[in-house]
Amino acid sequence: MKAEVGVFGATGYAGREIVRLLARHPSAKVAFATGSADGHVPHEEGIAREASAYLVSLPHGVSASFVARLREAHPEAVIVDLSGDLRLPTAGAYRAWYGHEHPAPALLGTVPYGLPEVYRDRIRGARLVSNPGCYATSALLPLVPLLRQGLVDPSDIVVDAKSGATGAGRTPREDLLFCEIDENLSAYSPGRAHRHVGEMESVLEEQTGRTVTLTFCPHLLPVKRGILSAVYVRTASPASELSEALRCFYDGADFVRVVEKPPRLSDVVGTNDCLISVHAGAPGRAVVFSALDNLVKGAAGQAVQNLNLAMGWSEAAGLVEGG
Amino acid sequence: MKAEVGVFGATGYAGREIVRLLARHPSAKVAFATGSADGHVPHEEGIAREASAYLVSLPHGVSASFVARLREAHPEAVIVDLSGDLRLPTAGAYRAWYGHEHPAPALLGTVPYGLPEVYRDRIRGARLVSNPGCYATSALLPLVPLLRQGLVDPSDIVVDAKSGATGAGRTPREDLLFCEIDENLSAYSPGRAHRHVGEMESVLEEQTGRTVTLTFCPHLLPVKRGILSAVYVRTASPASELSEALRCFYDGADFVRVVEKPPRLSDVVGTNDCLISVHAGAPGRAVVFSALDNLVKGAAGQAVQNLNLAMGWSEAAGLVEGG
Amino acid sequence: MKAEVGVFGATGYAGREIVRLLARHPSAKVAFATGSADGHVPHEEGIAREASAYLVSLPHGVSASFVARLREAHPEAVIVDLSGDLRLPTAGAYRAWYGHEHPAPALLGTVPYGLPEVYRDRIRGARLVSNPGCYATSALLPLVPLLRQGLVDPSDIVVDAKSGATGAGRTPREDLLFCEIDENLSAYSPGRAHRHVGEMESVLEEQTGRTVTLTFCPHLLPVKRGILSAVYVRTASPASELSEALRCFYDGADFVRVVEKPPRLSDVVGTNDCLISVHAGAPGRAVVFSALDNLVKGAAGQAVQNLNLAMGWSEAAGLVEGG
Amino acid sequence: MKAEVGVFGATGYAGREIVRLLARHPSAKVAFATGSADGHVPHEEGIAREASAYLVSLPHGVSASFVARLREAHPEAVIVDLSGDLRLPTAGAYRAWYGHEHPAPALLGTVPYGLPEVYRDRIRGARLVSNPGCYATSALLPLVPLLRQGLVDPSDIVVDAKSGATGAGRTPREDLLFCEIDENLSAYSPGRAHRHVGEMESVLEEQTGRTVTLTFCPHLLPVKRGILSAVYVRTASPASELSEALRCFYDGADFVRVVEKPPRLSDVVGTNDCLISVHAGAPGRAVVFSALDNLVKGAAGQAVQNLNLAMGWSEAAGLVEGG
Repeated sequence: MKAEVGVFGATGYAGREIVRLLARHPSAKVAFATGSADGHVPHEEGIAREASAYLVSLPHGVSASFVARLREAHPEAVIVDLSGDLRLPTAGAYRAWYGHEHPAPALLGTVPYGLPEVYRDRIRGARLVSNPGCYATSALLPLVPLLRQGLVDPSDIVVDAKSGATGAGRTPREDLLFCEIDENLSAYSPGRAHRHVGEMESVLEEQTGRTVTLTFCPHLLPVKRGILSAVYVRTASPASELSEALRCFYDGADFVRVVEKPPRLSDVVGTNDCLISVHAGAPGRAVVFSALDNLVKGAAGQAVQNLNLAMGWSEAAGLVEGG
Repeated sequence: MKAEVGVFGATGYAGREIVRLLARHPSAKVAFATGSADGHVPHEEGIAREASAYLVSLPHGVSASFVARLREAHPEAVIVDLSGDLRLPTAGAYRAWYGHEHPAPALLGTVPYGLPEVYRDRIRGARLVSNPGCYATSALLPLVPLLRQGLVDPSDIVVDAKSGATGAGRTPREDLLFCEIDENLSAYSPGRAHRHVGEMESVLEEQTGRTVTLTFCPHLLPVKRGILSAVYVRTASPASELSEALRCFYDGADFVRVVEKPPRLSDVVGTNDCLISVHAGAPGRAVVFSALDNLVKGAAGQAVQNLNLAMGWSEAAGLVEGG
Repeated sequence: MKAEVGVFGATGYAGREIVRLLARHPSAKVAFATGSADGHVPHEEGIAREASAYLVSLPHGVSASFVARLREAHPEAVIVDLSGDLRLPTAGAYRAWYGHEHPAPALLGTVPYGLPEVYRDRIRGARLVSNPGCYATSALLPLVPLLRQGLVDPSDIVVDAKSGATGAGRTPREDLLFCEIDENLSAYSPGRAHRHVGEMESVLEEQTGRTVTLTFCPHLLPVKRGILSAVYVRTASPASELSEALRCFYDGADFVRVVEKPPRLSDVVGTNDCLISVHAGAPGRAVVFSALDNLVKGAAGQAVQNLNLAMGWSEAAGLVEGG
Repeated sequence: MKAEVGVFGATGYAGREIVRLLARHPSAKVAFATGSADGHVPHEEGIAREASAYLVSLPHGVSASFVARLREAHPEAVIVDLSGDLRLPTAGAYRAWYGHEHPAPALLGTVPYGLPEVYRDRIRGARLVSNPGCYATSALLPLVPLLRQGLVDPSDIVVDAKSGATGAGRTPREDLLFCEIDENLSAYSPGRAHRHVGEMESVLEEQTGRTVTLTFCPHLLPVKRGILSAVYVRTASPASELSEALRCFYDGADFVRVVEKPPRLSDVVGTNDCLISVHAGAPGRAVVFSALDNLVKGAAGQAVQNLNLAMGWSEAAGLVEGG
């Protein structure tokens, strides 16, 4: 019998993708889904419903206190929070990057960061997991192994990231209208203004014990799905050595693969894969490309991957054909 | 009476844009246009036709020898060559970046590089001008002033550029089909593999007298037109100082403007403008955005700007509303 | 000296296009523009400003009473109303198609319908002109000549129209988000539900003195601009005769042309042209294609064309290169 | 153990989709795939390989003789031919619509037309099935029930169809380049020029025993996948009765459903579904919308559905989540 899963926020793009993925999951099924559209129950009503696990895709600032109540009501259930509320280690860091007080600071510091390729052991069996940001996933998967092995300079990393428009959400806004995005490309929050900078740096510092400093420029692409990041690093090693280090680290991983040619969005859209390639730049420089689907490995797919680990299922269950 | 202009290669995307721009030019008109489509004359026949000026948009490797013959036939006429054949200073540099011998090495070293904001004096009155590459224009306009004033480190410059698909030309190829580019993003020739690296470095070295080293990654966007480049530089100066230096350099320029927010493709498509903005990155780093239309300021518009200077007309003639 | 023109509603897509077109008009210039964005004055303040002409691009239901006040304040000025408020002949027809009482019924019945190719004489010198709907323009230009000459059956006309998303306006709505329109196609208001049905039928009945009945299905395309309509007609004549009748009717017209192959959006986008072709269908049937740019010939360009006629200028002023 | 299936022509868009679908099929697996890309075997070599079934996605004119040889080599195997070669009933009809002699006329007249909702009994257990055209599927699914029940006039049917660009194939051609299709819409083969007219009429005549005459205009959309057809019919019945008739006919069907609102491409892309809605037009007219994914229900998905029936598997195997 399949385990029952409640989905909160099922009418946003990530929430819909969760529902789509769970529909083909061998061990889980959607017990209920909340949201504003037809056939969805209100969030409050959802809290009262019994389930084995809950996937929460609500706005940051709202999510943490909701998760706290949900946890109180269902202490044995697995909860995966897709918001940014539980990703930073301290209330101070949260205040610095989000501009307001943390809504449930007691939760911080204890919740594993749901990047399974890095924190698999902490996620396995956890009752609450914080699902990473889409840009953060895209940059951390290539950077964690390279920085842990001391192959690249932690003080000078540039990430130039390009994302499809589902990453900006489904709330009507003039700048998200078709006629504003079609045939266009725009950079936003350049340098160090995006919240994922704090998330990425805190993970990288936890992993390396050193200060890591990023320059990060996200761009909005005229496509629905996908993130392609170009990560420019300083290194004393040839590109082939970086490539080999990544290959070793991800040997046996279900979803992360090192490839020869720069990966394209079309190679990953619709999958939970992250493809990585490394290329030589000017002397002392390399560029590392990383491609994933922002709604799958960058959100719903990774949430299911975390659910699988927390529930003790196969990590790839429901995420590969025949899986 | 309007001066007669011959256009060679008028059926490609840049060639068509030349014809479109000349249709509204106050001092010039199209005398004939060559190409493969209806109503166009063959290239050979075109050589025999008298005109005041010729705009040549033929493939590299073919263009230089064609230009040499055209020049011999019409020594008094102005010729603007849009190919890559005359952009590098020496036959050796050409061989290194283009992989074959230069077809007309006698032309090299004497032809001004048609970036009017930098080489206006050389272009004014010239009989032959080499029109810059689209990516090169996009990166050089922000970099030349910053490097000339010693504001950024010449040894560590990263250019992450994104271009619309007209930049890849109109010759049928599987990777240029609609279904291959739509909803996709791909990087190509990463690091130092693209020919424009040689072109950019040789201009920057000529301008600064120092070695300049670029890491350059171009991307193919699912849009028709426009290039947005993010230029990551090392600098000891605050972003505001870089911005101010650019503002001074381009004070009075018709087509280059420094703006506050990152420019979008939609701000420049259809115009001969290049918009530039500067933003702080991690300490010691800044990011400079540069946006232009690859078919206008990156090709046909800049060719008309060069034509204007060479013919002694107003630099902006035919390139602004009412101009 | 250029005549001063006030633009009301300059921040919508049609309003912006008006401003863009007037920037290159030989006889007119924008005196002021109202709207919600930077540098625009409020509508109320605009009423007080003196100008030779006013182009009003406000929502239907709001526009007519605004126009009435504007006319009272400036009885000598030319006003072109781009809304649907003045297109129907009677308050009853307005109530039937718009679902509410007409806001200024005294204006009805006296204002020429601004389709210059059909009502040129009424528009010339008029003080107030009602600019047609975009879909209506697209269907009426082929249908008026064919129906006037009795070449097609007025009782059985099918119009299948496809429009770019600027036609739906710039007000944020979930169904207009990039991720909802991209890679999608949707039909809406099928059959006889769209307001332009009333507008088209009333013009066609006025032109023919007979009852005309349309089946009309508009579609929303994943493009910014352009309408391509397929008009399916019953006819006893061969396609060539229909084609010839259209050619005669539009002989000498600046903006309407009959072509051999089905026109594409790319043939008309950015221009004030409407291209028409006729093709044989099953016996007794023909299909007539009509293509135009919904923001130009379907809105702002036609408004300028009407302005030109009302002001006594050349009909094509500002609407063609060099015009 | 899964049955082995050989795929011929696996590098085109339909062929790739076959491989994708078979990867998740519960009873079948790809034994080999032929084509021009890496890892594919040549077609000739494929003929020699033993398999339980073969899906053939080769160009028309080539396919029939290839299928004849394949059948001779493997008389017990199931073959589904996706080309147009076996869809018309006679060599004369083939010559009329395809412009050349049929390459294997002996096959004609015996092969079931693979529209399972209409010809399920003929397909079940067949050794060779002819897979329908994408446009034909889109128009036949709504028209067959309505014509069979005499609800619409067979002498006056208009089909206005819009298809994504994968329908035009993957062979490089200038008119299929990204820059030619993006932001564009074009009609082609209008009236009665498209080969699917012959295919549709022959099926409808076989079904009704009456002459059926179509006016058919296909359009090329700037999207990858999906066909939305608007079928305009003359009828003495209200739209609700047509809707009800379709609902009855498709009661219990796995993939065809009647819906209330006009179906959008996004409702069907990626699925084997065909959604149909009926709406009133002018008196005596109705419009029937039909939406499907041209690569799934219009090609590869329907081929798998036919494979399932021919092999005696569940009709929906591999075509629905969990199926």
